[in-house]
Order: sequence, then structure tokens, then C-alpha cells
Amino acid sequence: MKPYSIRSNEELAAEKKELEKKYEEFKARGLKLDITRGKPSALQLDLSEPLLTAVVKNEDCRAADGTDCRNYGLQNGIPEMRELMGQIAGAPADQTIVCGNASLNIMFDTVSRAFTHGICGNTPWGKLDKVKFLCPVPGYDRHFAVTEHFGVEMVNVPMLPTGPDMDMVEELVSKDDSIKGIWCVPKYSNPQGITYSDETVRRFARLKPAADDFRIFWDNAYGLHHLYNDESKQDKLLNIIEECEKAGNPDLVFVFCSTSKITYAGAGVAAIASSKKNIAEISNHIKYQTIGSDKMNQLRHIKFLKDFDGLKAQMAKHADLLRPNFEMVYKKLNEHLGGLEIAKWTEPKGGYFICFEALDGCAADIVKMAKEAGLSLTEAGSVFPYHKDPRDSYIRIAPSMPPVHELEMAGDLFGLCVKIVSINKLLAERA
Amino acid sequence: MKPYSIRSNEELAAEKKELEKKYEEFKARGLKLDITRGKPSALQLDLSEPLLTAVVKNEDCRAADGTDCRNYGLQNGIPEMRELMGQIAGAPADQTIVCGNASLNIMFDTVSRAFTHGICGNTPWGKLDKVKFLCPVPGYDRHFAVTEHFGVEMVNVPMLPTGPDMDMVEELVSKDDSIKGIWCVPKYSNPQGITYSDETVRRFARLKPAADDFRIFWDNAYGLHHLYNDESKQDKLLNIIEECEKAGNPDLVFVFCSTSKITYAGAGVAAIASSKKNIAEISNHIKYQTIGSDKMNQLRHIKFLKDFDGLKAQMAKHADLLRPNFEMVYKKLNEHLGGLEIAKWTEPKGGYFICFEALDGCAADIVKMAKEAGLSLTEAGSVFPYHKDPRDSYIRIAPSMPPVHELEMAGDLFGLCVKIVSINKLLAERA
Repeated sequence: MKPYSIRSNEELAAEKKELEKKYEEFKARGLKLDITRGKPSALQLDLSEPLLTAVVKNEDCRAADGTDCRNYGLQNGIPEMRELMGQIAGAPADQTIVCGNASLNIMFDTVSRAFTHGICGNTPWGKLDKVKFLCPVPGYDRHFAVTEHFGVEMVNVPMLPTGPDMDMVEELVSKDDSIKGIWCVPKYSNPQGITYSDETVRRFARLKPAADDFRIFWDNAYGLHHLYNDESKQDKLLNIIEECEKAGNPDLVFVFCSTSKITYAGAGVAAIASSKKNIAEISNHIKYQTIGSDKMNQLRHIKFLKDFDGLKAQMAKHADLLRPNFEMVYKKLNEHLGGLEIAKWTEPKGGYFICFEALDGCAADIVKMAKEAGLSLTEAGSVFPYHKDPRDSYIRIAPSMPPVHELEMAGDLFGLCVKIVSINKLLAERA
Repeated sequence: MKPYSIRSNEELAAEKKELEKKYEEFKARGLKLDITRGKPSALQLDLSEPLLTAVVKNEDCRAADGTDCRNYGLQNGIPEMRELMGQIAGAPADQTIVCGNASLNIMFDTVSRAFTHGICGNTPWGKLDKVKFLCPVPGYDRHFAVTEHFGVEMVNVPMLPTGPDMDMVEELVSKDDSIKGIWCVPKYSNPQGITYSDETVRRFARLKPAADDFRIFWDNAYGLHHLYNDESKQDKLLNIIEECEKAGNPDLVFVFCSTSKITYAGAGVAAIASSKKNIAEISNHIKYQTIGSDKMNQLRHIKFLKDFDGLKAQMAKHADLLRPNFEMVYKKLNEHLGGLEIAKWTEPKGGYFICFEALDGCAADIVKMAKEAGLSLTEAGSVFPYHKDPRDSYIRIAPSMPPVHELEMAGDLFGLCVKIVSINKLLAERA
């Protein structure tokens, strides 16, 4: 298609008129479409039905070591789940603590703990005048919300196709000891679907931060969440825990993971993994917080998933359900916007999101316009700290939840909105 | 039996010789008895087997409002569980937040939140030079451990048969604005099994603390945990939330409760209840911490327990299992120690503990001696802040877990140890 930028005002006005007619038709249909959050679909959740009957009798309630999972104890999780979650995180079982139902909760608690008690003998962050976090952007809104809630100053770091801009990361952390952490979603990142390159992971592992208590918050939420079951089409991520060990920086990273998008988003199992030293410290802290997380749910999970192979088999079924959704969005974006040079978007091979980049100053208007015709999109700006997208350009698309036919409609409507808002911008610029 | 204090040295020496012979016989048996922690027995846990099959099909997974409990959402819990937990706590559903598997976790988080963010607009406790908590003693070791972990200065308040010494509580909180809280187990208290009198509850509700952010941490862990199903033998506790409202102090109290000793100790459901204002603030904070607790477990619980009547029926079954255990300990203590005037103990009508009071300076020795013959008791001192029992006198007995025949042996052995240590003390005093 002919790029909008080289079309005449008359051509654009004519195009706009036609688009607006279609937009009004959409509006008249009273649609209710929602692609805001990365929630699994009901069909995906249905995959875990055997979880419901994995433990049904009193005599089923023992962990491998004989522990009665119904009773108190085993603060750090049942051994077999520590092993499985460790495999997801890339750490041995004894460097993995299995917690409750959400990795967000562990991340929050990890930040909170650093504020109240400090990390490895360093001053609690709450006693410092300033604490900063690096935030690769665009990124995950709930990460940014946690640090904002604790009054952390967030510093944007651009995402490149290889991961965060490591030149900038290295420079900042080596010079400024008030920088205490960085939020990372290293595989199929939220929202771009980027997987950090081997070189990026190694540069992370070799960081020489000015602050002793600088930690990489490595939220490997989508570690096994491929869209394609052919391994050649799957992104690969280096094991950060191993790389940190090799680099002589074993304590540099906290790895978070969960089964939220493997079994149940609201009732999965989450874990934190790190060096022996970090894990000993965390374990020594959470002993005041809990006698132990829900071991019955851990037991259900291990009986259902069985082992790492079972887990991969489960992920292959998710891929089969998710792939058509993503491919529908890719198809619609290309169909409506290909060649117009008014937008860019990622086409990830995994994860839960697509990152859409409109012309500068257009994102909020697109979201508003879509909303008025019944399509809910994540609020513009939400992929940036403080909800401030400096260019008002990024929109996160979450295609996992709706059925494909709804995504088809959503794609058509979204395309219209992007085109109308872009024409408005181009015409305004020329006026 | 003739009190030891009026027996001659010769009589005591002869008694001791005989007791030591029996003690050596016990030692030779290589027993392994454990009455340290308030854990439910396997038989009690077996009562909740239907919980395991309460939700077995994909189509069972919806809450009453249609929410798919497998997915994200409903941060404060599913409506029907908020209602049931609210009934346990004595609060309406909309003043109750259902959380994860442990009230300890909620209490820890509540203290932590006060340290990082403050309560209702007041200075975060972490920014204050000194924060103090009142600790009715003897009390629950895990409460004291939480506040100790946060560097809170703990001030002992004696427990009376009516609850904490309210003259002292009123005086302290009205004068000292660094006193920010008090730990309470108001019903069948840990470890004495005392239930606060109506007057005590009303005096709590009418407190006029110097600190705006003073809160009563009301851990109603044993609210329904009677040993006798005849209502006339059950302790009654006033509703603190209602009393605080009546007194014009609605924000004064945080109530904590859980199903840990109703269903599963390691996999139950816990909740916090308070005023509308407090709950709004907590809700607004935990939205950064979690998208929601495990709703599947909430759903299992409501399908199993059904309603407050169902819950009471479940508690009656627990009572039938627990009562013989407590009564065996009461019997053995009376049999071995009655009339000797070397010990006092409580005989609660509910809860999980018996509080044993030895002669001053004897508790640690009794615990050590019992341990050497194979009987594990909670560490002496553990019922006091900083593990310091000023009189070295209190021992907490937890009779819930072992079978009755083990409690019988434990009672015999414990009686021996108490008598030998007491004779040693009396003889040493006379020397």
C-alpha cells in the first residue's frame, strides 16, 4: 500500500471519510472486545483439569519426603516442587524457594524486604535518601507500579532487539550507587516479546555495580511460553544464574517464575531462585512471615505436571491454543497497516504480548477511539514508568484471552483507529 | 498429696530417688514424643477430605458472581468467602479481605506495611526513632518474632484471668505515642486458653491511644475452637469490631483469622477484617502486591464448608477429636502434681494450648530433662518476647497432635521431670 506520508491531502481526506464510515458501522454494533491483560483463555485453563483431581484422598497428601502437605511445615516448599520450579528458573532445588500463587507477590516482598531489612548486610533502602531502579522501556506496568509504590526513582533504559541497552546499563550501574536494581523480563519480554541475546545476558552477569546491594530482578515469566513447538522457531535464553556464577557474581540476580501461565493464572505456584547466599538470607527472613506456603497446591502441581518433560508437554498444548490468536493479530496488522508507514509492531514467537508502535503522539488517541467503539486496550503510557510514554507512541496488545473471531474483529477495528488517528496527525502537521 | 514445701529433706531425697529410677526407665525406652507445636493431628486433617473433591471439573471453577477462579482477578477474594471469613472475624464481607494460606503472613505484612508506608497517613514506622508494641505475656512466640524482626521494642503486659492487665494497657497507650500496637489472642489465648472478658474487650474498644496509628492486632485464631460442643461449656467473646464502632473508634483494630485449624493447617484460607477505612487503605496497598490470592482454594473451602453452620459442624468434629487429648493432659497433671504446690496450669475449654507454670527458675531445667528422655517441649522462654521469661517458669504444652496414648506417656514423663527439678530447687534453697 502507498505510504500515507506521500499521499496528498485530498487522498488522505478521502481515505479518512471512508474509514470513518466503517468506524461508525463498528460503533453501531455495540461490541465488547477486550485485549488489555495477558490473561489465559478458558480453553487454556481447561488444559489443567487433571490438577483438580491430582489429590483426592487423605492418603494422597504426602510429599515425596513423607511430609503431610495438609499440615504446617516445609517453609521453602516440598522438595519435588523445589526441583521442578528450580528447573524453570535454572537453579538447583536448594537455591529455589517455592512460595504462594504469584511471582508478583514475591517480587513485591523482595523489594519490601530490601526497604525494611536491606540486602546482605547493606543499609535498608528505607534508610537511604534515594533509591533508583533501571526500567527497560517499554516494560511491564506492574513492575513499575511496585517500585513507584515504594518511592523508587525509575530511570528509563531503551529496549533494543537484543534486550536493554547494555552500554547504558553498564555505565549507569557502575557510576551510581543509588541504583539498586533493574526490572527484566528476559524471555519473550512484556510487551515486545524480545528475548535477551546471549551477549546481553553475559553482560548482565558481568556487571560491576557501584552498589553492593544492586540486584537484577529477572522475571522469567515466559521462559517456556513458546508459540511454536518446532524448536527451531523457539527463542533461547542463557541461564543467568549459571552466567553470574561463571562471572564471579553469583549474588547479582534474583530469578522469579511461576506456573500462572502453565496451570492456573490465579492459583498456580510461584518461586524465587538465586545464589545459595541470597536464598539463605531470604529463607531466614521469610521464616518470620510464614510457616510455609500452600503445600497442597504444590503437591497437586507435581502430581499433574510430573516433571520437566510433563511441563513441556503442557506448554505445547498452550502453544497450540495461543498461536492462532497471535497469528490472527499479525495477519490483521499486516493487512490493514502493512506498507502505510504509520506503525511498527513486534511479531514475537512466544509470551503473551505484542508491542505496537504508532506515530508519535497517537497512542492515547488510538486507545480512546478504540474504546469508544467497544475495544478495550491497555491504557496508553502504561508500559512506561509513571504511565508516561515520552512519545505517546506505544500500545500493548494482549491477544491470549479472546477467541480468534473476536480478535479478527478487534484487529479490523484497531486498524481503522490507527489509520484515522494517523491521518488526523498527518493532516494537522501539514496545516 | 502432701505439698513438697512442707516435706523434710529426707522425705524429698527419698522421693527423688524413686522418681529418678522411674525417669531412667523412661530414658531407656528411647521414646520420641513431641508436644511442642499446635499442629492438628492427622485425624483432624482427615475431617477435611471432602475439600479435595469439592472442585473437580472445569465447570466447577466459577465463583457465585461468575468469576472464573482459575484466572486472575478479585484481589480481595471471592464474595462468598469474604462473607464466611467475615462471619468468623465478626465483620461484614466488604470489610473483610481474604488472602492466602496463613494469617501469620497477613500479620507480618501488616507490620511491614506500617513500616514502609505508615497507617492512614501517619509517618511510616520505619522513619521513627522508636516503635513499641505491648505484648501480653505469656503469649505467642511467632507474634513476638515478627515485631522483634522489625526492631520493635516489646513491652510485657501481664495476662490476668480476664485478659491483658487493662489498667496497664490504658495507662501505657494513653501516655506514649511510640506504642503502636498490641498483640492479642483474645479467645482461648495462646498459651493459656484465656478468653478476654466482656469488660476487657470494651476497654480495648474505648482506648484513647496517644498515637493515631496505634492498632490492636486481634489474632482471633481460635474463635470457634471449642473443646466442648455443649454451648454452656464454651467461652464467649464480644465482637471487637462492633465494640470499636460503638465506642467511636472503628479504625482501632485489625482482626486476623484463618481456617488453618478448621480445614488444613498448611493449606487453609486466611483473612483480615477491619473498618471500612482501614480495609480501603489495605486494599489500595495490596493491589501492588498481588492480582489476587488463590481463589481456587477459596472456592474449595466454600463448597466444602458451605456456610457458618457448616463451619460449626466441622468444628464440633474437631472438638470430639481434641477433647480426649486435653483431658488426658489435665488428668495426668492432676494425678502427678495435684496438691504438691510446685506447679499451676490452665485447663482451657478450647484452643490449642495449656500453659504450665513451674516454680521460679525451673522451666528450662524441666524442658531439658524431658528432652533427654525423648519428650520435646516448646523451648522454655519462648512464650515471652526475646525468649526471656523473667521467672523461668512458663512452659507451653500443645496436646493436639499426638495420639492419646502418647500423651499419657508424655504426661507421666513430664510429671516426673517437674517433680525432680522442683525437689532439686527446694533442696538447693534449703542448703
